[in-house]
Amino acid sequence: MTVGSEALRQDVLRANLVIPKAGLAQLTWGNVSGVDREGGFFLIKPSGVAYDDLTAEKLVPVDLETGKVLGGDLRPSVDAETHRAFYLAWPSIGGITHTHSTHGVAFAQADRDIPVLGTTHADTFNGPVPVTRGLTADECAHDYEWNTGQVIIETIGDDEAAAAMPAALVANHGPFTWGATPQKSVEHAIICEAVAEMALKTLALNPNAATPAHLQERHFKRKHGPGAYYGNPR
Amino acid sequence: MTVGSEALRQDVLRANLVIPKAGLAQLTWGNVSGVDREGGFFLIKPSGVAYDDLTAEKLVPVDLETGKVLGGDLRPSVDAETHRAFYLAWPSIGGITHTHSTHGVAFAQADRDIPVLGTTHADTFNGPVPVTRGLTADECAHDYEWNTGQVIIETIGDDEAAAAMPAALVANHGPFTWGATPQKSVEHAIICEAVAEMALKTLALNPNAATPAHLQERHFKRKHGPGAYYGNPR
Amino acid sequence: MTVGSEALRQDVLRANLVIPKAGLAQLTWGNVSGVDREGGFFLIKPSGVAYDDLTAEKLVPVDLETGKVLGGDLRPSVDAETHRAFYLAWPSIGGITHTHSTHGVAFAQADRDIPVLGTTHADTFNGPVPVTRGLTADECAHDYEWNTGQVIIETIGDDEAAAAMPAALVANHGPFTWGATPQKSVEHAIICEAVAEMALKTLALNPNAATPAHLQERHFKRKHGPGAYYGNPR
Amino acid sequence: MTVGSEALRQDVLRANLVIPKAGLAQLTWGNVSGVDREGGFFLIKPSGVAYDDLTAEKLVPVDLETGKVLGGDLRPSVDAETHRAFYLAWPSIGGITHTHSTHGVAFAQADRDIPVLGTTHADTFNGPVPVTRGLTADECAHDYEWNTGQVIIETIGDDEAAAAMPAALVANHGPFTWGATPQKSVEHAIICEAVAEMALKTLALNPNAATPAHLQERHFKRKHGPGAYYGNPR
Repeated sequence: MTVGSEALRQDVLRANLVIPKAGLAQLTWGNVSGVDREGGFFLIKPSGVAYDDLTAEKLVPVDLETGKVLGGDLRPSVDAETHRAFYLAWPSIGGITHTHSTHGVAFAQADRDIPVLGTTHADTFNGPVPVTRGLTADECAHDYEWNTGQVIIETIGDDEAAAAMPAALVANHGPFTWGATPQKSVEHAIICEAVAEMALKTLALNPNAATPAHLQERHFKRKHGPGAYYGNPR
Repeated sequence: MTVGSEALRQDVLRANLVIPKAGLAQLTWGNVSGVDREGGFFLIKPSGVAYDDLTAEKLVPVDLETGKVLGGDLRPSVDAETHRAFYLAWPSIGGITHTHSTHGVAFAQADRDIPVLGTTHADTFNGPVPVTRGLTADECAHDYEWNTGQVIIETIGDDEAAAAMPAALVANHGPFTWGATPQKSVEHAIICEAVAEMALKTLALNPNAATPAHLQERHFKRKHGPGAYYGNPR
Repeated sequence: MTVGSEALRQDVLRANLVIPKAGLAQLTWGNVSGVDREGGFFLIKPSGVAYDDLTAEKLVPVDLETGKVLGGDLRPSVDAETHRAFYLAWPSIGGITHTHSTHGVAFAQADRDIPVLGTTHADTFNGPVPVTRGLTADECAHDYEWNTGQVIIETIGDDEAAAAMPAALVANHGPFTWGATPQKSVEHAIICEAVAEMALKTLALNPNAATPAHLQERHFKRKHGPGAYYGNPR
Repeated sequence: MTVGSEALRQDVLRANLVIPKAGLAQLTWGNVSGVDREGGFFLIKPSGVAYDDLTAEKLVPVDLETGKVLGGDLRPSVDAETHRAFYLAWPSIGGITHTHSTHGVAFAQADRDIPVLGTTHADTFNGPVPVTRGLTADECAHDYEWNTGQVIIETIGDDEAAAAMPAALVANHGPFTWGATPQKSVEHAIICEAVAEMALKTLALNPNAATPAHLQERHFKRKHGPGAYYGNPR
């Protein structure tokens, strides 16, 4: 019997297919997962499968508590333990995306936060997108992917903080993003890459560029919190 | 009964669909409107609707005098008040486009005008594409989108000036462009992004690049005014 | 009766359609022409016609001696006089392309030659792709497009020189390229843009980059002259 | 009789068609070959044939020992002697790719190795992707393509070294990559270009960027050697 509802499988499949379509990763790089909180598991892209060959059936169910694969004969993405760390730390999130998108990786490799330089950024991210500290030799040697999750959680903070800042850059690695649904998490990956590219080009034109705090606040509040009025069709 | 002629609806729809096709914005970002001066309203993209789902029927009619929605059950783009300010200030324009195109945003975030570095620019824009002053804390706190329109109008000037300079960059935000028709306004958005990219790359090669005044004048006059002879098929 | 053989019309049409496909220009920018030496005329893209609407019938025949349109009711590209100058100066060329490709324009606007930094460049261009001097106020005021051709010819030299260097950048404007056929001229436009992008990025990594003369010579000779052995299928 | 099994011909054809699809080269540039060790020959893209016109039948069989063409009436890619040098030097490789991809060429022209700045690089390349020394005037004058192979072999080392570093940049020229199969070699070309672009943009943000050795080691070992667990579907 297949683990995971057809609706969740379709959601996770659709969100995974955004990665190649939006140019966020090459080859088989990148992955999206979605969680079933009641069922106590998440579905994630299998390891080493090309996006063109990906189907809803190939998504791999992973137990939230143990990290064990719950069915099928494919291995989950090597990043599954990072995803599991997030789902356990942040009860409100429903989906997670990992990419190697060019400009997000450039900031991660440069060991620089993506600064808030305008409203495109402030609409989604309530502050700079932070880069984590580097993992220690010890954290690399054992449980590397789990430890990758832990340094991100250390950087972001609790569930509420994760909602206000749905992205982080792992030092010398690349972006992880999350959201209420798999689709939202991959949209955050698109936005993270777009604002990283804009920031890199802004800094080339003006290394001292910055945004006034009152403009940041106005834009973040337009889309979030009780008075939000942006992007709501009705 | 639907407000707005079928011809105007098709014009505004077609111009909106240029935004994703020309790569001027991600996700649901960006919007185009077109005005019916006799009817006293304009049609604008609804808020939060994906371009793939956009139809002529979903365009939202907004009253020019009051800013009220005249029909349908969708909310207009959050930028509708900015559009309304332009239509009231500049009687000759027929369409307006807003994008978050990468290089236009980079100049806006860097707080730099797009300088006139060559004929591609001078063919359309009669001088540097200006960046506005930043909005004050007060202007952000109340009627933010209306005030965004006002600082652009303050930067550009009157109706005649708006015809010679059909684009502006809102500081720390991005480009607005306009024209005689919705299609013309989105073409100006394409040109604004193209010249911004060329300018960024030119400045990387030569930070002191500039264009002689007589060349600027020749190119602007080729396309505008009584002796215009460029781009006219017959 | 239509001027120009169906074969030439198809050649010129096909070469024009490479411009949008290869991303060498936006909107209606850019144009390709092809010459009929015996007939004493060339066919060129009409002014202001979108590439999607271009057909072989719409190409405009222009008299080589007088510059007059020989048929149809469309106006030729505003750059027709520049093309005519080249055909008269260089008897061996059969086609000409003009684009506003991003990186070629960046070098033209920066007033810098595209330097020879590697074999991609040396395979096609026997030296730096030169930027012309700027046109004087007088040259801009009268017969501007014809004068544009003259400063390029002044920069390149005679027919033999034009064969070894089938490209030039007009200062503060952009690239013109030419070749034995319309197709060859647009291939030179593609290569000019590719090497301009490579050069800009090379200079960002190493402002003192250069190529040894013996490598340049080897590569140019692989493709040109009596011992050529590159790119020849049989 | 056609030389080369249908399976090998299809493999080499498919890998060649990745080049234009992944944007690794313009026009007819670039080539992939695949070897038949038992048969003592390799199949390579013919010279000067457009990718749209390439078929399995047009691939040219070249004798490993002598470099002579074993059938058909097309000439092999001008780079065939470079490929032959690799197959003779490195018995484990099964396919080779050459491109003129933009960012790989930029590093080659800048005479700089692609440094290890993050995990995207370390997953595939066990150290910086090296740029070769320049060829001498003598090496350019005689057996130029064969000598190009020799300087790469001089830079990389033996068969084992070639497996840990399946890419090199020829100074002032561009990338060559190789792998166990034609498909693997072209995947290495994609990764080489991706990490070159990331590196160029990282260095723009932080000229002193670097990666800790323990992170490099962890990532390379995840995909290679006895404990590898990355990208393996089962």
